[in-house]
Amino acid sequence: MADVTLPVRLNHMRAVDLIRKKRDSGEHSREEIDFLISGYTRGEIPDYQMAAWLMATWIRGLSGAEIASLTEAMLHSGEVITFPELPAKKVDKHSTGGIGDKTSLILAPIVAAGGLNVPMISGRGLGHTGGTLDKLEAIPGFNTALTLADFRRVLRECGMALIGQTAEIAPADKKIYALRDVTCTVENVGLICASIMSKKLAEGIDALVLDVKTGSGAFMQKEEDSVRLAELMVETAKRMGKKAVALITDMDQPLGRFAGHSHEVMESIEVLKGRGAADLRDLSIELSAWMFFLGDCSKSVDQGRVRAEKLVASGEALARFKQGIGLQGGDPGVIDDYAILPQARNRAEIKSQASGFLSATNCMEFGIALATLGGGREKKEDQIDPGVGLEFHKRIGDRVAAGDTLATIYYNSAGKLEEAQQRIADSFVLSGHQPPPKKLVRRIIGA
Amino acid sequence: MADVTLPVRLNHMRAVDLIRKKRDSGEHSREEIDFLISGYTRGEIPDYQMAAWLMATWIRGLSGAEIASLTEAMLHSGEVITFPELPAKKVDKHSTGGIGDKTSLILAPIVAAGGLNVPMISGRGLGHTGGTLDKLEAIPGFNTALTLADFRRVLRECGMALIGQTAEIAPADKKIYALRDVTCTVENVGLICASIMSKKLAEGIDALVLDVKTGSGAFMQKEEDSVRLAELMVETAKRMGKKAVALITDMDQPLGRFAGHSHEVMESIEVLKGRGAADLRDLSIELSAWMFFLGDCSKSVDQGRVRAEKLVASGEALARFKQGIGLQGGDPGVIDDYAILPQARNRAEIKSQASGFLSATNCMEFGIALATLGGGREKKEDQIDPGVGLEFHKRIGDRVAAGDTLATIYYNSAGKLEEAQQRIADSFVLSGHQPPPKKLVRRIIGA
Repeated sequence: MADVTLPVRLNHMRAVDLIRKKRDSGEHSREEIDFLISGYTRGEIPDYQMAAWLMATWIRGLSGAEIASLTEAMLHSGEVITFPELPAKKVDKHSTGGIGDKTSLILAPIVAAGGLNVPMISGRGLGHTGGTLDKLEAIPGFNTALTLADFRRVLRECGMALIGQTAEIAPADKKIYALRDVTCTVENVGLICASIMSKKLAEGIDALVLDVKTGSGAFMQKEEDSVRLAELMVETAKRMGKKAVALITDMDQPLGRFAGHSHEVMESIEVLKGRGAADLRDLSIELSAWMFFLGDCSKSVDQGRVRAEKLVASGEALARFKQGIGLQGGDPGVIDDYAILPQARNRAEIKSQASGFLSATNCMEFGIALATLGGGREKKEDQIDPGVGLEFHKRIGDRVAAGDTLATIYYNSAGKLEEAQQRIADSFVLSGHQPPPKKLVRRIIGA
Repeated sequence: MADVTLPVRLNHMRAVDLIRKKRDSGEHSREEIDFLISGYTRGEIPDYQMAAWLMATWIRGLSGAEIASLTEAMLHSGEVITFPELPAKKVDKHSTGGIGDKTSLILAPIVAAGGLNVPMISGRGLGHTGGTLDKLEAIPGFNTALTLADFRRVLRECGMALIGQTAEIAPADKKIYALRDVTCTVENVGLICASIMSKKLAEGIDALVLDVKTGSGAFMQKEEDSVRLAELMVETAKRMGKKAVALITDMDQPLGRFAGHSHEVMESIEVLKGRGAADLRDLSIELSAWMFFLGDCSKSVDQGRVRAEKLVASGEALARFKQGIGLQGGDPGVIDDYAILPQARNRAEIKSQASGFLSATNCMEFGIALATLGGGREKKEDQIDPGVGLEFHKRIGDRVAAGDTLATIYYNSAGKLEEAQQRIADSFVLSGHQPPPKKLVRRIIGA
């Protein structure tokens, strides 16, 4: 008779009761969040209950206090690194990801050359975005899977070390993130904030600069959503006693001229040589300037900017990148010989059928096209072809004549070339009027 | 870098895309629902993805068309029984469950004695509600796990057969219901409707009478929610070419005088003997009357009522119950000797501390107290103690003097007696004014 029932109430805490509470828009206590996160990490709460809780949370949202509890619970699910042996400040940067976003490869050596420590734990790319680890691994021999002992040693020797998430760091986040990915519960500011901040705070940093992307190539396309996430992350960092600032930056078009792993390493080295695309250079300098300022290495952001520019001009930042590559097992010859990076065999050009001004791009589509060609992951298990890449010849505001090349595709397999070509061609929007120039840094939160 | 990503779009159907669609309040096509249900039943869609979809569905809701698609997909996940060998109409009743609701044991023999077939596939109790199967199993030897062949044979011989859900009937529902139970996604009218109707329509019935409970002991406490569920179920049945009606009935207090398995069997036999509690007798007659009417066995509900009353008065319904018990392996001696039912060794009385009129009960608490004492399940795996029971001495509107017995507890183990006593005592609400009498049948939907 009874097909439908209410669960029995018991005196101890149960996952079902917490799922119901969030489903019904309730607010969790710190103890409840701890129970959920530690129970799930230990395997006592099954995937399906966490999946239901995540969906309820995605829809109902999390309060500031809940996000703080969640961040702390995830942070303390694993090891929290400290660096008592390093006197200089530890500073890191985190980006929410976009197309052609390779600033980590540029600012880490700049900031390390300036005397700070950059203990950077990064992620891999999935879907339309690239990942710092994947880019670095385009360099032959580069090892992003250092032990914590080696991470510490590299950091001590050159002031920068770039590795992937280890089993010791925030294991709760690793497990929860994998589940969010397959249950459509990724894009929620509270969950994102806790995921990012639990890992970053486990790095033992003193300060954090956040690059929160907004626009058609960002996972948060509306500026107000990016601002909300930025505010939450800055608030969470400060509550934990860390200095933090967030830059809301433009992702309505790719950052720099190239996307794709070998190409992005190459472009990063170009910027460290004082060349390269202006927007990429400017943003890298800007983020470095904030890292210097928050790391007490310069009295103002302006002074930090000057310092960053000098370190590039003098070649010190480039030398530091070369040293870091060598210390992590990579071939430092890449600095002078890009030919040692994997290259694609073929190229194809996307030409404009019309004339006008480039007024917008459907930027995320570039990332999807790149993944389609093997230059990104559609699924976690996919292998990346680092030689595959895209080159963008026009920026928003540029005049375009019919027949002009909009983009070049560097590819190996022609299997999905046509689909990618179509996708890319469809993503350039022309207009009869020249649009106003895009501001690269839209807002600064928490300064 | 990329901690957050959007899933890549692919051309074939994927569970993640359907989760996202429902999460974002979209409406599924029939094909999408089929993909989800058949994929989950075959084990191709994992529990955690179904859990996320169920939570999104619980919160966002299902349209009438989606509920119809879901019901059909679940119905066709297994065998749909037909009875070409039985000329008389096949009619069933379903209740959404409550405290002391034992009408199936009474109306099945009445309706079978009246010439219709009642092929009843029932559930077990969980939480605060009891289950028909558990009640029948209080009768020594009674077998509710008949094969479909035996189910058919018993039905042919006596016009009624009461069994549990088999592996052949709506396996999708069995699997989904188990998941809903542990992910807090039970109480949603669309999911409930599809769950109930897919099983009932698989029974090969021509007509269905629905008893939808409302009030403090029902899983849907608000009358408008019960009405909405009733409307959906009636609409779904009619769309599938079945006659259906729903009675919205009172569950602000227990139905009848007893709750607990042996006690409910006893009370059902009492009603079939022309005795027993008035509310239980009246509702059983009313539901039987509607079954006669929808089964084309009487020209009106009034005539059906007269017919049901005669079948009780003549002893034919009682004789039919005795026959049915025997055919399903049970001891038919129970009809004349209640002592063969398991009995509790001890009793305790709950006395009123004050005087006034009984104005309300927190009825669900009685069910929880019963489960606490072993007379119900807190978890699916729990064994039931059929001898444990509750007797209710007062009904809403009754005058209560200080010292009057409100309830008697029949128990075996004193372990949780105090907790149960407190829970029961707290659930009687007295008032200085006599409340208006409760109407047993509040509304009729679909007549």
